[in-house]
Amino acid sequence: MDYTLLKDIYRQQHDYLDKTVKISGWVRTIRSSKSFGFIEINDGSFFKNIQIVFDESLSNFEEVSKYPISSALSIEGTLVETPNAKQPFEIKAEKIELEGVSSQDYPLQKKRHSMEYLRTIAHLRPRSNTFSAVFRVRSLAAYAIHKFFQERGFVYVHTPIITGSDAEGAGEMFRVSTLDLLNVPKTEGGKVDFTEDFFGKETNLTVSGQLEAESYALAFRNVYTFGPTFRAENSNTARHAAEFWMIEPEIAFADLKDDMELAEDMLKYIIEYVLENAPEEMEFFNSFIDKGLIERLTNIVNSDFGSITYTEAIELLEKVKDRFEYPVEWGCDLQTEHERYLTEEVFKKPVFVINYPKDIKAFYMRLNDDNKTVAAMDLLVPGIGEIIGGSQREERLEILEKRMEEMDLDKREYWWYLELRKYGGTKHAGFGLGFERAIMYLTGMSNIRDVIPFPRTVNSAEF
Amino acid sequence: MDYTLLKDIYRQQHDYLDKTVKISGWVRTIRSSKSFGFIEINDGSFFKNIQIVFDESLSNFEEVSKYPISSALSIEGTLVETPNAKQPFEIKAEKIELEGVSSQDYPLQKKRHSMEYLRTIAHLRPRSNTFSAVFRVRSLAAYAIHKFFQERGFVYVHTPIITGSDAEGAGEMFRVSTLDLLNVPKTEGGKVDFTEDFFGKETNLTVSGQLEAESYALAFRNVYTFGPTFRAENSNTARHAAEFWMIEPEIAFADLKDDMELAEDMLKYIIEYVLENAPEEMEFFNSFIDKGLIERLTNIVNSDFGSITYTEAIELLEKVKDRFEYPVEWGCDLQTEHERYLTEEVFKKPVFVINYPKDIKAFYMRLNDDNKTVAAMDLLVPGIGEIIGGSQREERLEILEKRMEEMDLDKREYWWYLELRKYGGTKHAGFGLGFERAIMYLTGMSNIRDVIPFPRTVNSAEF
Repeated sequence: MDYTLLKDIYRQQHDYLDKTVKISGWVRTIRSSKSFGFIEINDGSFFKNIQIVFDESLSNFEEVSKYPISSALSIEGTLVETPNAKQPFEIKAEKIELEGVSSQDYPLQKKRHSMEYLRTIAHLRPRSNTFSAVFRVRSLAAYAIHKFFQERGFVYVHTPIITGSDAEGAGEMFRVSTLDLLNVPKTEGGKVDFTEDFFGKETNLTVSGQLEAESYALAFRNVYTFGPTFRAENSNTARHAAEFWMIEPEIAFADLKDDMELAEDMLKYIIEYVLENAPEEMEFFNSFIDKGLIERLTNIVNSDFGSITYTEAIELLEKVKDRFEYPVEWGCDLQTEHERYLTEEVFKKPVFVINYPKDIKAFYMRLNDDNKTVAAMDLLVPGIGEIIGGSQREERLEILEKRMEEMDLDKREYWWYLELRKYGGTKHAGFGLGFERAIMYLTGMSNIRDVIPFPRTVNSAEF
Repeated sequence: MDYTLLKDIYRQQHDYLDKTVKISGWVRTIRSSKSFGFIEINDGSFFKNIQIVFDESLSNFEEVSKYPISSALSIEGTLVETPNAKQPFEIKAEKIELEGVSSQDYPLQKKRHSMEYLRTIAHLRPRSNTFSAVFRVRSLAAYAIHKFFQERGFVYVHTPIITGSDAEGAGEMFRVSTLDLLNVPKTEGGKVDFTEDFFGKETNLTVSGQLEAESYALAFRNVYTFGPTFRAENSNTARHAAEFWMIEPEIAFADLKDDMELAEDMLKYIIEYVLENAPEEMEFFNSFIDKGLIERLTNIVNSDFGSITYTEAIELLEKVKDRFEYPVEWGCDLQTEHERYLTEEVFKKPVFVINYPKDIKAFYMRLNDDNKTVAAMDLLVPGIGEIIGGSQREERLEILEKRMEEMDLDKREYWWYLELRKYGGTKHAGFGLGFERAIMYLTGMSNIRDVIPFPRTVNSAEF
C-alpha cells in the first residue's frame, strides 16, 4: 500500500504540494479533447475527488481518454495548486495505469438516480456521493459511541443474538431453527417438539439486550451494548426495518436523573464527533439532503436539554388539542405530532418527558411513589420526536414481582432477572438508542433503507 | 453519580489520600469482631477491591457486621495509606448505608467454583474475579479493534445478519423464519413455500460478512466488519460456539503482502492495548489461568512475524512426519498439531503460511500463476495454531467464473459479487479474525463458553 491517500492530500496538502504523488482510485468523471483531458478520481479514503490532468505526453493517452466511468486506475504525477479553479489543487499526470476496467453499462452514470433504484444496486450505491457520505458518517457515529463509553470506563457487553427466552416481550420475533420444515417433529400433544431443535428448545432473534445488560451492570457498574436487534413486524414504512442496531447503556448506583444526563452527554458527543470528523459529508447533507441540518444539530449541542413530566406535558397538549389528529388525555401514548409540538414549539430544543403512566410502559420500569407513574424518560428532539427511551429499573423484588403478576408474565421465565434483585440489587437505570434512527437524524436521510448497507424489510432480504 | 470510582482512586491515589471519599459497590468479603470489622468492596469500575475499615463508632455497626456477601453499599470515609499492609490504602468508614441487601444463599461464596457450575449462573459470574477479568478484557479488545481500524481511516460496515442468499457456503446455517411450524405452506410440488415467509424467500443467519464487505471496499477502499456470525455445526467442543463475533477487514488496491502486514499490525495493536489498559487483569490471568501468558504475548508484540509457503511447510513437516497423528502430504489441510509445530518449534514466533492448494480453499481466493495454489494466508501463533485466515481475492472475472463452475456454484446467486469485478474491480484482500478465539488467546481461557457472556452451543441457549 505505497499509495498516497486523498484524505492525507486534502488534510495535509502542504506536505504534498509540488511533489510527485502516486494515488489509486476509481474514475468518477472523465472528459477529454484531442490533446488533453481531465479525470475526477475518488480513492475511497475521502468524500471529495481529485482532478487529474493528462495530455498526449502520456504514451497511453488514447486509451486513457476512453476509460469508462468507475474504472480503477493508479496515477503518478505532480500535485500542483490551482489558485483560479474551484478545487484547491490537481495532479498533473505523468503515468496512468489501468488496474481494472469498468464496463460501459456501469449503472451509476452521472445523472441522478432515485433512492428506490439505488436500493436495487446496494452493492454499488456506496460509490455515489450520497451513500458515500451516509455510510462514512454511520461508521464515524458508531465509533463515537464506542469512544464515548470507553473513555468513561463503560464495559462493552455482547448480549446474545439468539435468545432462548420469550421474556423480552418487546414485539414480534423471528424464530431461529434447524428443524426440517417438511418434517417438523411433534410431541404427543401435537405441538412442535423443540427438544429436537438445535438448541433443544424454541429460540428467537433478540429484540433487546437490556435484561442481560442489567446483569452485567450489577457486576461492572457501567456497561453498554451495541449490536443488532430484530423485529418481525409487518410494517412497511420509511422508519421500520426488521434488522437494526441498538445501543443500550445500563448504569448501576444511578437513578433517572443520571440516566438523562448520560443520554444528553452521549447524544451531544456523537453529534460533535461527526461534525468534527466528517465536515465535507455534513456540508453535503446540509446542501443537498436537508437544508438547515447543521444549524439544527449545532443547536442541540449548544442547548441544555429541557425536562417536563408526562402529566405536565398532557396539560400543555390539551390546551391546543385541536391542532392534533390524535386525541390527548392522561394515560394515552404520545404520538409523533405531540412529541414534535413539545420539542419544536414549546421548548424549541430537546426535551425529556419523564414519569409516564405505568400502564403504557414496560414491567421493569421503577414505580414512582404516586403508584401511578414509572420513572421512565423519552428524549424528544426537533424534527423527529422520540429518539431515546429509557428508565430507572425496578430494583425492589416484591414490587417487581407484583408488576409482573399484574401484567401476567411468567416469573419462572425471568428467574435470573429476579435474582439480580435478590443478590445485592441496587438502583440502576438505562436507555436504548436506535442506531439507524440516530443516523437518519444526523444525515437528514428520510428512509431507514438508505442508512443501512443492505436493509432487511418485509419481503426484502436481497444481497 | 456523585460517587468516586475505585478506578480513579487506584489510578490517581494522590488526589484522594487523606480526603473524604464516597464510594458504592458490592461486598466481596466481610469479617468483623466485637468492635471493628473489614469489608472488601468492589465497585465494578476496577478489577481490584478496596478495604473498608469500620468500627462501633458507626450507629449501625451491628447491622453492617451482618451484611451478606454481595450486598450493595454506599460508604463515606477517609482514604488512608496503609504502608505496612498488602493493599496500598483503605477507607476508614464514617458512614455505611445499605443500598440493596443480598441473600445468605448467594451462590458466589468465597470458595472456588468449577467453570461448569459458573456457566449455570452466567448472570452472576461476571462478579467473580475470573469473569470480571475476562469480560473487561473482552470489552477492551473490542475497542482496540475499532480504534485500530478507525485511526487508519477504515470504514466500519454493518453487513447483514439475516441473509437471503446461501451464497456464503461456509457451513451449516440457522434458518430465520416466521412461518407457522404446525402449518407450513407448501408449493404445488410439495416444497416449502417460502414466498409466504416474512422476507418472501428462505433466509438464514449469516456465516460471514466478507462478500458484502468486498462491495464496500470497492467504494471506501479500506473497510472492516465487526459483528455476530453463526454456525449450526453440531460440534460440542471447547472451541465451537453457534454464535460468535468476527472481524473481517477488506482492503482495496492491496495484495496478499499488504493483507499480512495489516494482520500483523492489528494483532500487535490489540495485544499492546490490552496489556497497557488491563494490567491487573492480565497479571491475574498470568498468575492463575495461564502461567507464561504475558511473556508469550510480549514476544508476539516484539517479533517480526515469519512467512513460509504451504509447499515449503509441507516439506518441513514431512521430515518429521512420525511425530504427528495426522498424515502430511501436499494437498492436505494442516492440522493444529502441524500448525503448532511450525510456529512453536520451527519459527518460535507467529508465522504466516501462504499459497495453499486451491482445492482446499474457497472459490474467491486469487489463483496464483502456478495454477495450483491460491494467494491465501493463515496466521499461526504459538499455543494455539491458526488465529487468522485470509486471502487476496480473485478480481479477474473470467477466472472467478471458471473457479465457480469447477466448484459447481450457481453464478446467478452471486450476480452482484461478480458485478464488483465488472465495474472497476481491482486487486483487493482481506482476512477474518474470530473474536472469541482472540480473547481465549489473550486471556488463556481454554473454553469458548467462558469468553462469551451468554454462550450459545448445541442444546444450550440459556438466559
